[in-house]
Amino acid sequence: MQTLNIIKIGGDIINHELRLNQFISLISEIKTPMILIHGGGKLLDQFATQLGIEQQMVDGRRITDAATLALATMVYAGGINKKIVALCQSNGIQTIGLSGADNNCLQAHQRKIGEIDFGFVGDIIKEGVNTKFISLLLSQNIMPVFCSITHDNQGQLFNTNADTLASVLAQAMSSYYEVQLMYCFEKNGVLRNVEDEESVIPNINANEYKILQQQGIISQGMIPKLDNAFAAIEGGVCRVIIAHALNILKSQHETDYVGTKIIR
Amino acid sequence: MQTLNIIKIGGDIINHELRLNQFISLISEIKTPMILIHGGGKLLDQFATQLGIEQQMVDGRRITDAATLALATMVYAGGINKKIVALCQSNGIQTIGLSGADNNCLQAHQRKIGEIDFGFVGDIIKEGVNTKFISLLLSQNIMPVFCSITHDNQGQLFNTNADTLASVLAQAMSSYYEVQLMYCFEKNGVLRNVEDEESVIPNINANEYKILQQQGIISQGMIPKLDNAFAAIEGGVCRVIIAHALNILKSQHETDYVGTKIIR
Repeated sequence: MQTLNIIKIGGDIINHELRLNQFISLISEIKTPMILIHGGGKLLDQFATQLGIEQQMVDGRRITDAATLALATMVYAGGINKKIVALCQSNGIQTIGLSGADNNCLQAHQRKIGEIDFGFVGDIIKEGVNTKFISLLLSQNIMPVFCSITHDNQGQLFNTNADTLASVLAQAMSSYYEVQLMYCFEKNGVLRNVEDEESVIPNINANEYKILQQQGIISQGMIPKLDNAFAAIEGGVCRVIIAHALNILKSQHETDYVGTKIIR
Repeated sequence: MQTLNIIKIGGDIINHELRLNQFISLISEIKTPMILIHGGGKLLDQFATQLGIEQQMVDGRRITDAATLALATMVYAGGINKKIVALCQSNGIQTIGLSGADNNCLQAHQRKIGEIDFGFVGDIIKEGVNTKFISLLLSQNIMPVFCSITHDNQGQLFNTNADTLASVLAQAMSSYYEVQLMYCFEKNGVLRNVEDEESVIPNINANEYKILQQQGIISQGMIPKLDNAFAAIEGGVCRVIIAHALNILKSQHETDYVGTKIIR
């Protein structure tokens, strides 16, 4: 099977003009098919503050009321997505920017109200991914760039966690490609000591992950990302790499990993 | 050649939840290939006011500074575009929302500074339309929905007049399809008396247009729209119809025009 790189880019890359330029320039050298995924929570927060739309977070997850969903759709699917698309095109990458609503690429269902009512937050499963259309684009040498807006195919848009979206998309595409899922952000990988960028843990398997959590070495923000990473591996993805966005080219060679590799 | 409907929808339809629902429900009955085009100036104005981004208009045309372009990209390519896409999908229309940057669908150049500096306003020509990719989508039974954001393929996004965009796109697609261009808005057509919705002028040719302008019957806001309509006819488009959005189905039958028909 052909290799497919599914690359989630974090907010610190998106919001930093120079780094984003560098990152897009780097990925233009990758010759295997690619899919990009982005959110944009920091920019959303900025606009929400300016517009007086109060934001509520629970354990780092956003409660999405109607006004926040409308704004997220503008910021993610509009502002950020088209900026990335235009940059990619100028770097010679044929690119199409998509939300989950577009041609029903990512169908989700609204998260059930449990202890918390997350509002218009959508959860997706593998079966909700339009692998046929995404494969058609890839076969035409077009790179899809997904923002983290999904829908229910009944007219309702949703806000979906971009890390989770990347994981589920990667699992779905694993039926057709040898998928490498990359979480690219502003850190060098999963760190033993968050203050020390040199303390990258090169490999983590499921058992080690449990131990690292018990020891408190992996905590808070990194846990959902690693949960998504292990879900991807469980779901058929070949490799998950968590790395600094500007180390992405080095991550393309199996012998030369820079960052943290998640293994079975 | 196969018929292709290229339909520009105006702001009063976009901003009115019920009318937009009705409109999308109506077009779901059209079985020929379609392309939708929208702008969203009114919603842009609302957000610009809230965010304190001053708007400058010259003869009804927007001066687009960097902040306005960023906001237009959010509102047009994000908020409005994805709302329309989600609605179309829920009405059984396979739809993909696009800006001109996506896969270089609509390449433009920045308007030269003349008497007025329009800022990040892009003008497109027929040759800037990616007819190959648009035709691929249509052949897959996918309806493209274009917002009026274009780019120069060098990384710069532009704000482009949606009526003009529709006209140029229609001209470009006329090499492959028998194109019917429809300007759908909140009026019944081009009116002899703007106060009287029953005073629709059923047909206008170029000569009659000149006379109607000289008589002051057609003025101000309608002139750029009709200029775009006649440019489309000159450029190979079969029919241009200016009609109320909710009369769109009646406009599909040549013997049953509702609205104003622009003829050679």
